[in-house]
Amino acid sequence: MSIAVCPGSFDPVTKGHLDIITRGAKVFDKVIVAVLINHTKQPLFTTEERIDLLKQVTNHLPNVEVDAFNGLLVDYMKVNKANAIIKGLRAVSDFEYEMQMASINRLLDEEIETFFMMTNNQYSFLSSSIVKEIAKYQADVSSLVPPIVEEALQRKFAAK
Amino acid sequence: MSIAVCPGSFDPVTKGHLDIITRGAKVFDKVIVAVLINHTKQPLFTTEERIDLLKQVTNHLPNVEVDAFNGLLVDYMKVNKANAIIKGLRAVSDFEYEMQMASINRLLDEEIETFFMMTNNQYSFLSSSIVKEIAKYQADVSSLVPPIVEEALQRKFAAK
Amino acid sequence: MSIAVCPGSFDPVTKGHLDIITRGAKVFDKVIVAVLINHTKQPLFTTEERIDLLKQVTNHLPNVEVDAFNGLLVDYMKVNKANAIIKGLRAVSDFEYEMQMASINRLLDEEIETFFMMTNNQYSFLSSSIVKEIAKYQADVSSLVPPIVEEALQRKFAAK
Amino acid sequence: MSIAVCPGSFDPVTKGHLDIITRGAKVFDKVIVAVLINHTKQPLFTTEERIDLLKQVTNHLPNVEVDAFNGLLVDYMKVNKANAIIKGLRAVSDFEYEMQMASINRLLDEEIETFFMMTNNQYSFLSSSIVKEIAKYQADVSSLVPPIVEEALQRKFAAK
Amino acid sequence: MSIAVCPGSFDPVTKGHLDIITRGAKVFDKVIVAVLINHTKQPLFTTEERIDLLKQVTNHLPNVEVDAFNGLLVDYMKVNKANAIIKGLRAVSDFEYEMQMASINRLLDEEIETFFMMTNNQYSFLSSSIVKEIAKYQADVSSLVPPIVEEALQRKFAAK
Amino acid sequence: MSIAVCPGSFDPVTKGHLDIITRGAKVFDKVIVAVLINHTKQPLFTTEERIDLLKQVTNHLPNVEVDAFNGLLVDYMKVNKANAIIKGLRAVSDFEYEMQMASINRLLDEEIETFFMMTNNQYSFLSSSIVKEIAKYQADVSSLVPPIVEEALQRKFAAK
Repeated sequence: MSIAVCPGSFDPVTKGHLDIITRGAKVFDKVIVAVLINHTKQPLFTTEERIDLLKQVTNHLPNVEVDAFNGLLVDYMKVNKANAIIKGLRAVSDFEYEMQMASINRLLDEEIETFFMMTNNQYSFLSSSIVKEIAKYQADVSSLVPPIVEEALQRKFAAK
Repeated sequence: MSIAVCPGSFDPVTKGHLDIITRGAKVFDKVIVAVLINHTKQPLFTTEERIDLLKQVTNHLPNVEVDAFNGLLVDYMKVNKANAIIKGLRAVSDFEYEMQMASINRLLDEEIETFFMMTNNQYSFLSSSIVKEIAKYQADVSSLVPPIVEEALQRKFAAK
Repeated sequence: MSIAVCPGSFDPVTKGHLDIITRGAKVFDKVIVAVLINHTKQPLFTTEERIDLLKQVTNHLPNVEVDAFNGLLVDYMKVNKANAIIKGLRAVSDFEYEMQMASINRLLDEEIETFFMMTNNQYSFLSSSIVKEIAKYQADVSSLVPPIVEEALQRKFAAK
Repeated sequence: MSIAVCPGSFDPVTKGHLDIITRGAKVFDKVIVAVLINHTKQPLFTTEERIDLLKQVTNHLPNVEVDAFNGLLVDYMKVNKANAIIKGLRAVSDFEYEMQMASINRLLDEEIETFFMMTNNQYSFLSSSIVKEIAKYQADVSSLVPPIVEEALQRKFAAK
Repeated sequence: MSIAVCPGSFDPVTKGHLDIITRGAKVFDKVIVAVLINHTKQPLFTTEERIDLLKQVTNHLPNVEVDAFNGLLVDYMKVNKANAIIKGLRAVSDFEYEMQMASINRLLDEEIETFFMMTNNQYSFLSSSIVKEIAKYQADVSSLVPPIVEEALQRKFAAK
Repeated sequence: MSIAVCPGSFDPVTKGHLDIITRGAKVFDKVIVAVLINHTKQPLFTTEERIDLLKQVTNHLPNVEVDAFNGLLVDYMKVNKANAIIKGLRAVSDFEYEMQMASINRLLDEEIETFFMMTNNQYSFLSSSIVKEIAKYQADVSSLVPPIVEEALQRKFAAK
């Protein structure tokens, strides 16, 4: 069985992320979307909120699971018997950083393979940071995130 | 069953290609290495020679097949019931060209997914053209190509 | 009056080109689409055919003219009293080449300014070469070129 | 009337910025240089100081205005009836970031067009950060900023 | 006599750094490895610890000296009669930043020349930050840093 | 003694080439400018003409020699006891190609080191091809090539 992990911050999940998860789920037997718990960055959504949003937007995909991890990705993968990492690529700067990460992960565990998928052109400029920047000013993000994430963003910024 | 096609000119196959094929074969049920028949370029090895070398160097990989195709890759994939393309990425220029190809292939058939794998750092500078350029001057290419390809190159250039 | 030239091979014009011409025509008083006559490249469409297709697809834009030129772009611009060049940018490789061209043109005539516009994400992978490659195999190019260009491509390849 | 906005931090304005503003002002009817008020970054110069320096160095350009804004650029542009953004491009990293910004701005308001201009080669390495880094050590910045900015930098660092 | 400075944070020195220092020392009469004292960044190792580790790993190279500096690199070089800077290049993002630094240094002192060397492919993904990230989770860094640095990392993270 | 080779086509030598040669000659004991004899490309100037122009423009640099070579650069270097290659870098595309060449040359002879120097910003867009393209149309190339090369270009194109 081929099990792929799709790691990220997902703060919050965007239509770009969902596109990669959906397409990865067509080829791999199981895809685990794994939220990285990063204690140094100050996220907008808590780990629990991010997991909850991911679960709701991937609910219709039977072979997708949502989880969180801290520590090294390769250790998390060993525990979950995953042998592949899937990542979306948008631009040249993504490319170099991701190549570096893939090198490091292969060095730490040579059984692990990273597969890069091309983000849909439509979402090639999209990132969670951009979404937050726009939502902060009450501008329309409905073309960038699923409806449930849009509502969550509105509640967050209304509460601020 | 997940069937991936690994397309290319393979004129001739290098250790870089073999690295990608081997690692792809660990994750996909079947990998078809597909030699592109390009009538406008003048190759060093004939299509038959390239297929023959590929068959010999992938002989130990039970789920790898070698074939040739002309026309559009997506048409070839439909006939072979393949749903994934695997490609090695080395550098930024590779990246942009391959992103363009992946866009076009998705446009032509949205069921087809391209997976990019990172070429081993050791082979990040390696290409068939470079191998031919070096072999032409009788320099040592044993670290760049499998032994059988090295011999084939020596015969080609001795005959010239 | 601000007069911009949009130079290119347009062999043939694509929806990506048309997007840049249309958006440039909103800001500049006049846009001259100028087909470069290049005697060393073997085009698919003759200069006359390329001009004719461009005229038909820009017919609804009153401040757009279509013309052809050979020699240096800056000389052509002086004759036509144009002071700006507009070019679409798709990728990093475009960017470097176009920066070089813009440097040279400024060196040859410091009154001339180049304005780069971002190609719509939807067309970020699109080029005339790709269109010809796909049309050659009778695949559907209706999302890539205007209908009249699609028909012209079909006639060209049927005649071959 | 074509009104362009040239947004930025201008902390402080450099000869590179001034080059873009000057050349933009030759083609557009009006150019508004708009200082972004960013509450999260700690600038060297206050918004008022930055506006003041910009006004002094663009004083000889009759169709250039200086202003400040916070919030989304597209909202600011609507209020000011501006339909174009002008930005200088220096390097590949600039290019990708600016393409992302241009995509977002077009998404938020499709009437808005971004025009990229090539920074003069002479200033291709120049940024406000570099200027501040050099001025901090009392090194000569006279080739990088207008004289009035040089003096302002000297006063700032003398006061520290 | 040709004296080159190899500047950096070296927090801590990696096998990638050591590769560049060693190869630079074959061509230049003297190489000064100069640790940049940066008061704004919070390093893992103190300046003294970084110098000490560098001295130990370059001990076998008779024409290599280790030192620290703050302020402008060009001022440090003048004092030490050095006329060349050597830097390792790994990726495109390195390249642009280093080109910018080289431009600035040439502007500040036109007698100073920067020589870029290609980091060994084997270390093309390697950085001090990555090493610290991995060491933090007790993963094996023996292929990335000299043994003495590995021990220093273990002591640092055990003490935390 | 440190002997560097500066290889290239030099068809013809530009001010950008001369800048790199001059600056390399300040650091290395001897610099050999080596014209690559490439039988597949059709040069504008013969090998003899290119050598002659190079000799004239480097005449004032006592430690610069001009020569030609065919075959592998590393073989040429061994014969000439050179241990370093110097190359100018202009843009990202240069960078990737040159990194590949440096990798190959190190693979063929690990004693050989490649040093990249940053081309002066003023010449960052400059190439022999661009010079020929401009000179073909009788435009002014005096800021791009030394006077003697300008005359040679005029004679070439007058004769055509």
